[in-house]
Amino acid sequence: MNTKLTILGFNSAIPTINSSPTAQLLEISERHFLIDCGEGTQVQLRKAKAKFSKINHIFISHLHGDHCFGLPGLISSFRLLGRETPLNVYGPKGIKEMLETIFRLSETNKGFEIVYHELNSKNSEKIFEDNKVEVYTIPLEHRIYCNGYLFVEKPKERHLNMDEISKYPEIQSCDYHQLKKGKNFILKDGFELKNETLTTNPTPSVSYAFCSDTRYSEKIIPIIKKVDLLYHESTFLHDLKEMADYTGHSTALEAATIAKKAEVGKLVLGHFSNRYLDTSVFQVEARTVFENSFVPTILQEIYF
Amino acid sequence: MNTKLTILGFNSAIPTINSSPTAQLLEISERHFLIDCGEGTQVQLRKAKAKFSKINHIFISHLHGDHCFGLPGLISSFRLLGRETPLNVYGPKGIKEMLETIFRLSETNKGFEIVYHELNSKNSEKIFEDNKVEVYTIPLEHRIYCNGYLFVEKPKERHLNMDEISKYPEIQSCDYHQLKKGKNFILKDGFELKNETLTTNPTPSVSYAFCSDTRYSEKIIPIIKKVDLLYHESTFLHDLKEMADYTGHSTALEAATIAKKAEVGKLVLGHFSNRYLDTSVFQVEARTVFENSFVPTILQEIYF
Repeated sequence: MNTKLTILGFNSAIPTINSSPTAQLLEISERHFLIDCGEGTQVQLRKAKAKFSKINHIFISHLHGDHCFGLPGLISSFRLLGRETPLNVYGPKGIKEMLETIFRLSETNKGFEIVYHELNSKNSEKIFEDNKVEVYTIPLEHRIYCNGYLFVEKPKERHLNMDEISKYPEIQSCDYHQLKKGKNFILKDGFELKNETLTTNPTPSVSYAFCSDTRYSEKIIPIIKKVDLLYHESTFLHDLKEMADYTGHSTALEAATIAKKAEVGKLVLGHFSNRYLDTSVFQVEARTVFENSFVPTILQEIYF
Repeated sequence: MNTKLTILGFNSAIPTINSSPTAQLLEISERHFLIDCGEGTQVQLRKAKAKFSKINHIFISHLHGDHCFGLPGLISSFRLLGRETPLNVYGPKGIKEMLETIFRLSETNKGFEIVYHELNSKNSEKIFEDNKVEVYTIPLEHRIYCNGYLFVEKPKERHLNMDEISKYPEIQSCDYHQLKKGKNFILKDGFELKNETLTTNPTPSVSYAFCSDTRYSEKIIPIIKKVDLLYHESTFLHDLKEMADYTGHSTALEAATIAKKAEVGKLVLGHFSNRYLDTSVFQVEARTVFENSFVPTILQEIYF
């Protein structure tokens, strides 16, 4: 399965008829990670034909409404759909109080456990790891405590070269596991077969960096260096640079500069101010600095 | 201006691609009252081309998510749009804690005052009155504290009969105000002109009763007696009467029975369970009891 990012919403601040506030669904190594959850995200997930039951981890960048006000409704729907699996919610300190206050007053019987992972560090930290993926925070500079998230696939297993392996009847299927991990194979006569002769290189691992609301900050460059795909907000064009600084946001030109300096593969822009009726202007500005920049359409699926 | 009810959403529980949870906009005597505010209501208001700035009163029936989770986002948008006018929010005790917790943690600077009117009475009470309209609570029987709302236009002014008035030069335009209120006019010679000769009957006043989530309850009948328009939830058809009782909801047949016993003008159904793909079945069932029943379409404008 390819890695897929679905853009569920990319509006800043106010939802509109044709778009939604920030939310993305990342499908990576068979994991389904929801990133930010503005109002209306559950309907966007339905439009994207996403399976609610596969979402076990939700990462919230910050507590401004356009990034998290869809969470109470989504979690209520999880319960109504009969969910029993625990749900992991990562976000700034305070997210637990916000959600639990709402659920207490609305008498929402969740019926499943929410495992809160509240964040307050100003340094990048590993917040999730399993056998296939790691997730790190990317501390951002906004008006309120805010993190981006870096998703990294672990190195994958090497592919078996069955043409070569079949030449050695001594190699049994129970040995494949070690071969995939890169181990050499020692024949009974003591001869050591190099792994490179029995396997081929693994499918490359990919990485994705989500950089939500932030001022231009070169501090993030070492963390996101050479990711395959970078989402970086670009609320304004560069002629409104002062407005961007004042409100804790970036311009398209700044997003592209970060992408270039971090040597990323591709840049997706988003969080466009509603003042721009034609969002293609962001792509034009960004490409003056970093050619592989683009503005997504709503519900676009980006494979990488 | 006619009285207009816009159905912004009528889903129960889970929002879908083609519908939204409960929310209605009532335009009565130039007032714009928002009734319930499920997730996505602000987008529905945009689709209905409603003017956000005209909404100064929001009535929330109960704190289940499908009736109030759109409120934090709507209020945030009010702020972003530069609102300064105070906003009155009516709803169950707890609504203030819910909203203020969210706004504190999301660092939402509202920039305008929210006047909370928290309700906890089990009896019907007048909660709003100005020179044209009165609003009363309708205590309902749900799993959680819940009120419907009754909106009543005050008697309107009588219309001037200018053909008659022009026969009496003594009557000046400064006298019209008293004539519209029904007062007789005394000529200088002491002769009293009856008001009925100088004016005609006023435009009839209208009334609307919103009965959100509730079990079948005849206790509401005296409160909603003879309203012009009744909204009564009908989550299920009557073959699921047990389910309706268990979950604190009504069937279409029950809603129609209430409409008939209360002698209302017209019944609008809503809050349909997602299990029914074709909602016209509710209308068919209700009409077996009360002919003037109907199922609205989304964003339908009902004039009365």
